[in-house]
Amino acid sequence: MGETITKQEVKIRVKRLQNELQKIEMDCCLISSNVNIFYLTGMIFSGYLYVPAEGELHYFVKRPEGIVCENVDYIYKPEQIPNLLKNKGLKLPETLLLEADELVYSEYIRLHSVFLPKRTGNATTLLRGLRSIKTQFEIEQLKISAKKHCEVYSEIKKCYRKGISDLDLQIEIEYIMRQRGSIGIFRAFGSNMDNFMGTVLAGENAAAPAPYDFALGGAGNSAMPIGANGTILKDGMTVMVDMAGNFSPYITDMSRVFSVGKIDQKAINAHNVSLLIHNELKNIAKPGFSCADLYNETYKIVEKENLSPYFMGTMQQAKFVGHGIGLQINEPPVLSPRSKEILQKNMVFAFEPKFVIPEIGAVGIENSYLVTDSGIENLTIFEENIIPFQ
Amino acid sequence: MGETITKQEVKIRVKRLQNELQKIEMDCCLISSNVNIFYLTGMIFSGYLYVPAEGELHYFVKRPEGIVCENVDYIYKPEQIPNLLKNKGLKLPETLLLEADELVYSEYIRLHSVFLPKRTGNATTLLRGLRSIKTQFEIEQLKISAKKHCEVYSEIKKCYRKGISDLDLQIEIEYIMRQRGSIGIFRAFGSNMDNFMGTVLAGENAAAPAPYDFALGGAGNSAMPIGANGTILKDGMTVMVDMAGNFSPYITDMSRVFSVGKIDQKAINAHNVSLLIHNELKNIAKPGFSCADLYNETYKIVEKENLSPYFMGTMQQAKFVGHGIGLQINEPPVLSPRSKEILQKNMVFAFEPKFVIPEIGAVGIENSYLVTDSGIENLTIFEENIIPFQ
Repeated sequence: MGETITKQEVKIRVKRLQNELQKIEMDCCLISSNVNIFYLTGMIFSGYLYVPAEGELHYFVKRPEGIVCENVDYIYKPEQIPNLLKNKGLKLPETLLLEADELVYSEYIRLHSVFLPKRTGNATTLLRGLRSIKTQFEIEQLKISAKKHCEVYSEIKKCYRKGISDLDLQIEIEYIMRQRGSIGIFRAFGSNMDNFMGTVLAGENAAAPAPYDFALGGAGNSAMPIGANGTILKDGMTVMVDMAGNFSPYITDMSRVFSVGKIDQKAINAHNVSLLIHNELKNIAKPGFSCADLYNETYKIVEKENLSPYFMGTMQQAKFVGHGIGLQINEPPVLSPRSKEILQKNMVFAFEPKFVIPEIGAVGIENSYLVTDSGIENLTIFEENIIPFQ
Repeated sequence: MGETITKQEVKIRVKRLQNELQKIEMDCCLISSNVNIFYLTGMIFSGYLYVPAEGELHYFVKRPEGIVCENVDYIYKPEQIPNLLKNKGLKLPETLLLEADELVYSEYIRLHSVFLPKRTGNATTLLRGLRSIKTQFEIEQLKISAKKHCEVYSEIKKCYRKGISDLDLQIEIEYIMRQRGSIGIFRAFGSNMDNFMGTVLAGENAAAPAPYDFALGGAGNSAMPIGANGTILKDGMTVMVDMAGNFSPYITDMSRVFSVGKIDQKAINAHNVSLLIHNELKNIAKPGFSCADLYNETYKIVEKENLSPYFMGTMQQAKFVGHGIGLQINEPPVLSPRSKEILQKNMVFAFEPKFVIPEIGAVGIENSYLVTDSGIENLTIFEENIIPFQ
């Protein structure tokens, strides 16, 4: 489960947010999403965290009862906040950031009418940007997840039995994950991102397009149309395992490929191109490098190897090859052709050049990388070749 | 997984929505949440479902590729919709319902500026109201979940071993759930409702308040502060199992209590009061009965039995005793003192009068009930007394 977030750690994060508020000349940021409250306090509560550009935080809490910290006021509705601020001798903010990409419309409008700010801004964008640069504590948490992630993957081979379905294989992996400390849920940003602990994609199901914004799809079932669909594992198939590394609140992302019986050489070749691309990434990625160019350099290799029809899917092709990770599985930066982001020290991102080979399945690997002073460090060190089940 | 939703079933649901749109004189409803798209089409896609008050639906789809049905247009942004409607010879809606409690602020504002309607309304409220009255197909789906839910609960006893923790017990139950067809995720309405497959509450942990709006809490862990917290099961404790019945897209809700060794008579007595309240519910609940009064009648019994300090928690007490269930775990109606709702035929709701007894744990049961012509029918028929683990 990782370690508790210390007061000192929280201070570092809040200070960075307050510096940004001062820079953009905003009085205050009001936070109510679980993920951002957790980021800024180390706990989750239902209510509002009031972060002024200078001075102390204020907690306006609906639930749970019994929070022990300074500046807590229990409320049952946000309309109580202005008077509580006045009673503390604080004036109401004239300029206010709200979580415009996380609050539902009706909640946003309600908060807006409570404060009637002269100017508003988007707290979601600011917080996601801040969260993309990890602290030392966060990097340690990601390393905890990465280590357990690899331990679980080392047990996948023993989950295989002849004639097993993709779904039954996934259930065995989930069981080991939970036993090794997976916290269960993994958080995703955005409203169209249902998933459950990751995906196992066997054979042609890897090509099935999904409604969600993941690298690959899989038909899943009608109520959750992604991932395993009951495919029976058969000779000649590849099985891509992309299960969550949620062994701390910080999630690592790693995919590996397993094979059933003898698989065609063209799948092995495409897999090796993915490994080659990872090596190229290690040569070029460092602070200051453009995320768009990481995609573009990847795509050059893909084209040179004549693999573009299979890159990131066939029927539907994802237009990114990597993404930031942290408290959520899809944080900034995004490694896509139009990304405006550049790599910065202490960003952590997943990189996943994958191919779907018709009649065989998905190949390629995904690792989680930390951006260091001068390059990148792989957090998910585990066998990268295709791993035979038998 | 339940059966596929037929075209005929979808027609019933759409017709009801269109009737309501006509009644409230709105031109159109634009849907983009996963749960409402699934309800109205039987599939999930990323994009927008355009439901006019009369005439055919239109699908504006971003992902996945390859949807086979009438009136599909592939788009990459909602700004394309008006021209596509004009090309079909349709005029733009002047009055429009949007999902105000499901769309994040920035998405809502964007859609609003695409259509610039003269009048808007809240599609969330309307759809949640419609969804609270189940069709025959939906009732059958709930019965599928209920049956498997009971089958899984019948296997819980064998998961127990001396010295096991609440979390390890839950992991064993999760594993059986998945093997019996649990789809994994269960959907909840609202932004502060993290959970993972349900909760197992052992001993005093049942009293720990949580930030989420569930009947009981449990300390959980910092990243998901609800449910099991590593408590070792010991003699004299009760263990409340409240795991999800997500064996079809429709979720049943059921709690049962298990005991370790000999438990104190006062816990057994309180449990029996819960059973008594369920019996009283069966006497009074029928179409037309007020949901507030279901709470009030419950509370009368609780007070008469001097159990109010323990009702729905101790440190923090939930102010409801039941809730609708369906595609989400928390649908209308809500059984709370201020509820304005009345029971209607084909509503399905969970009823969960529970008590937390200090030093022992949680007692009481939860069943899922279908409102019939003249009363209610219990869908979750399973042993109701406290079940000894040994």
